[in-house]
Amino acid sequence: MNSLVANTTPDVEDYYPSRNGSASRCSERLDPVVYTSRDDPDSTYSNGPLSPSSIEDYERNGFVILDSIFSDAEVARFQRELELLRADPGLGSSDMVISEPGTNDVRSIFRVHELSDVFRKLSTDYRLAGAAQQLLGDQVYIHQSRLNYKPGFRGKEFYWHSDFETWHVEDGMPRMRALSMSVTLTANYAFNGPLLLIPGSHKLYLGCEGRTPENHFRQSLKKQVYGVPSDEALAQLVAEGGIVAATCNPGSVILFDCNTMHGSNSKISPFLRSNVFIVYSALSNRVVAPFCEREPRPEYICTRESIRPISVPKAAMMQG
Amino acid sequence: MNSLVANTTPDVEDYYPSRNGSASRCSERLDPVVYTSRDDPDSTYSNGPLSPSSIEDYERNGFVILDSIFSDAEVARFQRELELLRADPGLGSSDMVISEPGTNDVRSIFRVHELSDVFRKLSTDYRLAGAAQQLLGDQVYIHQSRLNYKPGFRGKEFYWHSDFETWHVEDGMPRMRALSMSVTLTANYAFNGPLLLIPGSHKLYLGCEGRTPENHFRQSLKKQVYGVPSDEALAQLVAEGGIVAATCNPGSVILFDCNTMHGSNSKISPFLRSNVFIVYSALSNRVVAPFCEREPRPEYICTRESIRPISVPKAAMMQG
Repeated sequence: MNSLVANTTPDVEDYYPSRNGSASRCSERLDPVVYTSRDDPDSTYSNGPLSPSSIEDYERNGFVILDSIFSDAEVARFQRELELLRADPGLGSSDMVISEPGTNDVRSIFRVHELSDVFRKLSTDYRLAGAAQQLLGDQVYIHQSRLNYKPGFRGKEFYWHSDFETWHVEDGMPRMRALSMSVTLTANYAFNGPLLLIPGSHKLYLGCEGRTPENHFRQSLKKQVYGVPSDEALAQLVAEGGIVAATCNPGSVILFDCNTMHGSNSKISPFLRSNVFIVYSALSNRVVAPFCEREPRPEYICTRESIRPISVPKAAMMQG
Repeated sequence: MNSLVANTTPDVEDYYPSRNGSASRCSERLDPVVYTSRDDPDSTYSNGPLSPSSIEDYERNGFVILDSIFSDAEVARFQRELELLRADPGLGSSDMVISEPGTNDVRSIFRVHELSDVFRKLSTDYRLAGAAQQLLGDQVYIHQSRLNYKPGFRGKEFYWHSDFETWHVEDGMPRMRALSMSVTLTANYAFNGPLLLIPGSHKLYLGCEGRTPENHFRQSLKKQVYGVPSDEALAQLVAEGGIVAATCNPGSVILFDCNTMHGSNSKISPFLRSNVFIVYSALSNRVVAPFCEREPRPEYICTRESIRPISVPKAAMMQG
């Protein structure tokens, strides 16, 4: 079992140690995946946009793909907004804009739920925020949001990682009670460097070797070096769960647990690939001090000072 | 149309100029794809292992995938031989062994049809050499052979290219009368960095910018910088033909024309991927002096001094 290491915030213990100088190791997940229950009439299980079968897929695999739940018109609006933000001269030199390694091509723009009315509205859409609340069984807030833009011809790979491992160590997210939604603005073809996920990987936690360097995020958002699982652990996860390439149409949502192992290959196809990425966390799971001896990452990467629960609108049941 | 530039070999003209200081340009293929005819009873069209529909696919798309034409036992024998060659201490420091960029992992071993009895026999197998002869309408010889080995976790991408462009410029292959066969020794999954091909791309020739540096092959076998088509030309080819990922079982053959545009993404999956790659050229298309002002590449990359036509054995008709 994990040893419990005191966090710098009093009375918050480290249930998921990583990068603390120990060797890499694999342990059981200590938290539920779905925090609501079909058997509890007071829970949000049966009161949200996700169908029971989508919830079961998510619980078993650590992800579910909701194909084409945004209309072509909605996707076109998001794409226009993405282009406006990419072309915004005021943003170009901002820390919130991350470029591809070796070039100045924009790879990500952070905090788009604050930068843009269009994406602020998207982040509170019932189809997204309602699903987050349905699974996490709590009010939710946005831990992070960003636009991802993988250019044609020379889109770089992103190696396997669990987002939770980084959010826990570098941001101080205490428990696994958060999830990500990737809203696809372009088609994800098998040959186009789609998101790759390892089904079932969310049920184990891989503590990683090494220690986190100062200002690690400046480098890790381009290419992660620390917080990378070992070859042996990855081979074991894949032997048990296989790999799924999240191929889907524009306007789909890839919804995945904070601890699901994922990554993507490079891409040489001429097609660009873009998505809006929003991380919802339970309000009860708000971040504390990082579980490493480093300063917290900036507010645009990790919401800390400006945590606001989302008022989830009501809407008709969606069959996911 | 192409201007004809005299080659250093008297009376061989350059029908496919590239890297000669001109801008990149796109021109029509000047040669047949299939050199035999269904209507000519004397041709090898109807006298080989490929079915008429496989020949038609190959002619139209520039490639055809022949799934599982080698047995599991044959594949196991090829895999054993591959491991023996990879472990051969006498080969480790040879120029014939190419490592991954940035590591010492073996990526390719050249000239395996001479190094190994197992692969010599494979290279003259009716299913391969018979198919080459059937399509090229001539006696065939091996222009190049190699083992490719893409390791797990960190297999690098290979950018789009036409093999013919390089074989023409750097080896002096006069015409498009050659083809490649990749015999897969492992499964090619969509997420596993499989060969990507652009259907129909073999019917156009993309002359490339730049000039060939001295000893370019030492670098280009790891990462190609010269002989790379322009973004605009690639986008046009893909707009017309799309992209096919050559997913297939072990023991399959991906048979593609020398001018078909192809490449592969990087791979982060734990599965390694290996294949035996054999290039057959028509005896009438034997190499002359390179179509650039450089010394010819070594014999292990381009057969020049030791050209020997293959005596193709007879075998029962194969339904491809």
